[in-house]
Amino acid sequence: MKATAQELAEILNGEIIGDPMITVHAPSKIEEGTIGTISFLANPKYEKFVYTTNASILLVGKDFIPKQDISSTLIKVDDVYASVGSLLNAFGASAQKEYEHSSLAFIDPSANVHKDTNIGPFACVGKEVQIGEGTHVSAHVTINENVTIGKDCMIYPGVTLYANTVIGNRCIIHAGAVIGSDGFGYSKDEEGVYTKINHVGNVMLEDDVEIGANAVVDRATMGSTIIKKGAKLDNLVQIAHNVEVGDHTVIAALSGIAGSAKIGKHVIMGGQVGVVGHREIADKVMIQGKSGVASNVTEVGKRLYGYPAIEYREYLKAYALMRQLPDLHQRIKELENQIKDLKK
Amino acid sequence: MKATAQELAEILNGEIIGDPMITVHAPSKIEEGTIGTISFLANPKYEKFVYTTNASILLVGKDFIPKQDISSTLIKVDDVYASVGSLLNAFGASAQKEYEHSSLAFIDPSANVHKDTNIGPFACVGKEVQIGEGTHVSAHVTINENVTIGKDCMIYPGVTLYANTVIGNRCIIHAGAVIGSDGFGYSKDEEGVYTKINHVGNVMLEDDVEIGANAVVDRATMGSTIIKKGAKLDNLVQIAHNVEVGDHTVIAALSGIAGSAKIGKHVIMGGQVGVVGHREIADKVMIQGKSGVASNVTEVGKRLYGYPAIEYREYLKAYALMRQLPDLHQRIKELENQIKDLKK
Amino acid sequence: MKATAQELAEILNGEIIGDPMITVHAPSKIEEGTIGTISFLANPKYEKFVYTTNASILLVGKDFIPKQDISSTLIKVDDVYASVGSLLNAFGASAQKEYEHSSLAFIDPSANVHKDTNIGPFACVGKEVQIGEGTHVSAHVTINENVTIGKDCMIYPGVTLYANTVIGNRCIIHAGAVIGSDGFGYSKDEEGVYTKINHVGNVMLEDDVEIGANAVVDRATMGSTIIKKGAKLDNLVQIAHNVEVGDHTVIAALSGIAGSAKIGKHVIMGGQVGVVGHREIADKVMIQGKSGVASNVTEVGKRLYGYPAIEYREYLKAYALMRQLPDLHQRIKELENQIKDLKK
Repeated sequence: MKATAQELAEILNGEIIGDPMITVHAPSKIEEGTIGTISFLANPKYEKFVYTTNASILLVGKDFIPKQDISSTLIKVDDVYASVGSLLNAFGASAQKEYEHSSLAFIDPSANVHKDTNIGPFACVGKEVQIGEGTHVSAHVTINENVTIGKDCMIYPGVTLYANTVIGNRCIIHAGAVIGSDGFGYSKDEEGVYTKINHVGNVMLEDDVEIGANAVVDRATMGSTIIKKGAKLDNLVQIAHNVEVGDHTVIAALSGIAGSAKIGKHVIMGGQVGVVGHREIADKVMIQGKSGVASNVTEVGKRLYGYPAIEYREYLKAYALMRQLPDLHQRIKELENQIKDLKK
Repeated sequence: MKATAQELAEILNGEIIGDPMITVHAPSKIEEGTIGTISFLANPKYEKFVYTTNASILLVGKDFIPKQDISSTLIKVDDVYASVGSLLNAFGASAQKEYEHSSLAFIDPSANVHKDTNIGPFACVGKEVQIGEGTHVSAHVTINENVTIGKDCMIYPGVTLYANTVIGNRCIIHAGAVIGSDGFGYSKDEEGVYTKINHVGNVMLEDDVEIGANAVVDRATMGSTIIKKGAKLDNLVQIAHNVEVGDHTVIAALSGIAGSAKIGKHVIMGGQVGVVGHREIADKVMIQGKSGVASNVTEVGKRLYGYPAIEYREYLKAYALMRQLPDLHQRIKELENQIKDLKK
Repeated sequence: MKATAQELAEILNGEIIGDPMITVHAPSKIEEGTIGTISFLANPKYEKFVYTTNASILLVGKDFIPKQDISSTLIKVDDVYASVGSLLNAFGASAQKEYEHSSLAFIDPSANVHKDTNIGPFACVGKEVQIGEGTHVSAHVTINENVTIGKDCMIYPGVTLYANTVIGNRCIIHAGAVIGSDGFGYSKDEEGVYTKINHVGNVMLEDDVEIGANAVVDRATMGSTIIKKGAKLDNLVQIAHNVEVGDHTVIAALSGIAGSAKIGKHVIMGGQVGVVGHREIADKVMIQGKSGVASNVTEVGKRLYGYPAIEYREYLKAYALMRQLPDLHQRIKELENQIKDLKK
């Protein structure tokens, strides 16, 4: 893609200060901007680079007032971050719209694969699988029997979809993710020997779900493990059997949700968070990275921190005083000595 | 599978209350039960659904006494959970017992693969590999040279087995797991530059071991990293070089065991647990999720919690008081003031 | 490889005590040493095995003085660990130096693959990919368009390299690792719905980098996520978009570095460490396993522990006193009672 300042200003509904005919072909970071690129100033910390960057165009907030001369053409916009998102999408948009089923793929004759799809080399599409229009199945993807995938999905290389998984429209599944593996469930006899409990349920991803690289979503013992509309899971996240993740919830990398937990809508979890099995977490709850949630959270929008997790500020205060324990300990000793003296 | 209440009651050694000839074809959750399915009541919290479910058959404990009318046929059993396990296995049992080596697989001529095995499309079986009767190797599995796999194993798609790995009978390895990768071992020179230490050992999984999706077990520097009989590792677990995991030990998702640690038998670890290298953990120890074990644990059956991990109740008490530190701090200040007054 | 004590002593610059012509063909652990193997004593705890092992040769420190008779031939060396490293490399060195492009691989005609490389079965090499001399691409590796790989790299099975990834010389990437996946970045509208931000950057691995099994390195929003010269990442590590990991830094398993964090040189991180986004960590900092780093760390060589991480000894002291809180609480109560009595 190549565009003039004027074309971009129209897309972004922005105001040009400088040369409307200057052209750019790629985005750049402001501190690395070169001629022919467009960069942006969102964080005021980076303002110094505005005066030194070689980027041909700079996106800035509509209230930005330069303190020195600027060589770049400016486009002033209402919301710099949102505009950058739009721009990145414009520049990143793949030109490819030709569909191909690789002759090196294995597609079972009973599978129902829309003709307008991509199936990569060595992809393996099992019995009775359904794949909707516009979906891209990359190299080395394994899709087991009876899986259903909607329209316009992107399945990256090496993904495994176990049998009976159901995937909505516009889902993105990154490389190496595993959807539908057995839950970690066993019965234990009196000698402590475990016997596997068969998991006959499945996994359902609703529309617009994104699953990170090497993440794992286990299928349900019975029924479905469900990741609801618009939820986003980062890399290496673990979702156990029968979990429900609510609409538009985001879960950062290396977090794990244990069996049958129910996570609300618009929840935000940092990285390496753990949630104990069978717990329920209300909508809009925010959980600080590394926290371990051991109880139900019923208050909408509550912010949590700690291990086990408690209210965010309460944890910070308690932790700050824990750091002062050597001093508090000393003060207790002094009080004891003073009392001893007073009692004499 | 389709079965009557009478057939199921015989399998489960249960007592029928209702229509012995009613048939079911699938299991269901009690709150979602539909006609033609069998559901169960194990957790008393769900008793209300007993009176509203449409499941044709319900498994209940032998002491269960209904408080209202029930439309389902009941089968009363001694142990509901164990019966559910048996049922799920009966319904989940795959009909497939025909074996096939996909023409799309690569099998080295020197490999010794039993004829009664499945080898999926694009599987890659290396030199001198041995695979026993009844084992299923799925699509996209890589088995490097000199690996030995026993009987009746299930290797899911995308698994990688590095050279010289030894796998017992009836093991299950979920998609994306990596067995036998190099340990994380380096020598460091005086300038802080790391040189790789070659790992010439291997990994041994004994019989009935299950390894979760995208889990990793590193091979030993010398000798073997060993996962003993009946041990179960959940998804995304990391087992470092030269670790030994004891018989019938279970380790939940995202836990990591550092190099040369020795975990006893019948140990239970929650998710996201960490164990420092070279530590030994006694049999039947229980470690709360997210704990970090930094010392040897010599007491059989000890329960641990915290970071670093201490005795379970000790941690809970200390943490409860940590939350009260703002109050304790206040009380110390008041004591100091009162002493000051008394001294006047 | 088969070698005499004399040959090995020359390689290791060691002194022989015993039979210079005795031969060995493999390394062994001292407690399991058999005739024909070479073992070593580095940790004094294992000295008792020196007197009972059947290993034909033993490496010991040059200051080692036996307390009893020893049947093995000794080689005394300056640094036992370094010598063991050299030995393992000698014994582990693969004889294979013949190169082959499997007829079962898919190599795009536009790719530029050096003839002296290995390309395994079902590997998938995309458009405009460049692969340097001596590099080994294993089975089931996916290399997307425009990836560049240097010389003498080892890419293990099932690795996925997203488009535009750049890999230096002598890098090792273990099975299932994913390099170049999208960063976890979204813009959020007023209804809490997330829209994906396109990531147009890439990942660069400099020379001598090693990436563990099933680890993930996300590509940058713009610019590059960079893993610098000689850095080593363990299994299941997560590196987010735009992170920079410094030269010769080591990060143990299951750690996660959030977006745009900048990790210095020669940093050492234990397992399950988390670093918050946009933080900077100075050179030579050491972070205890499971710690969560929430602030910038400016002091070179600082040692950290805790959640959030504070100075190592400070955390240990505070935690020790946290365990004594029930006692401290009791002492405060007693002080309160005594003051009450004094006031009467």
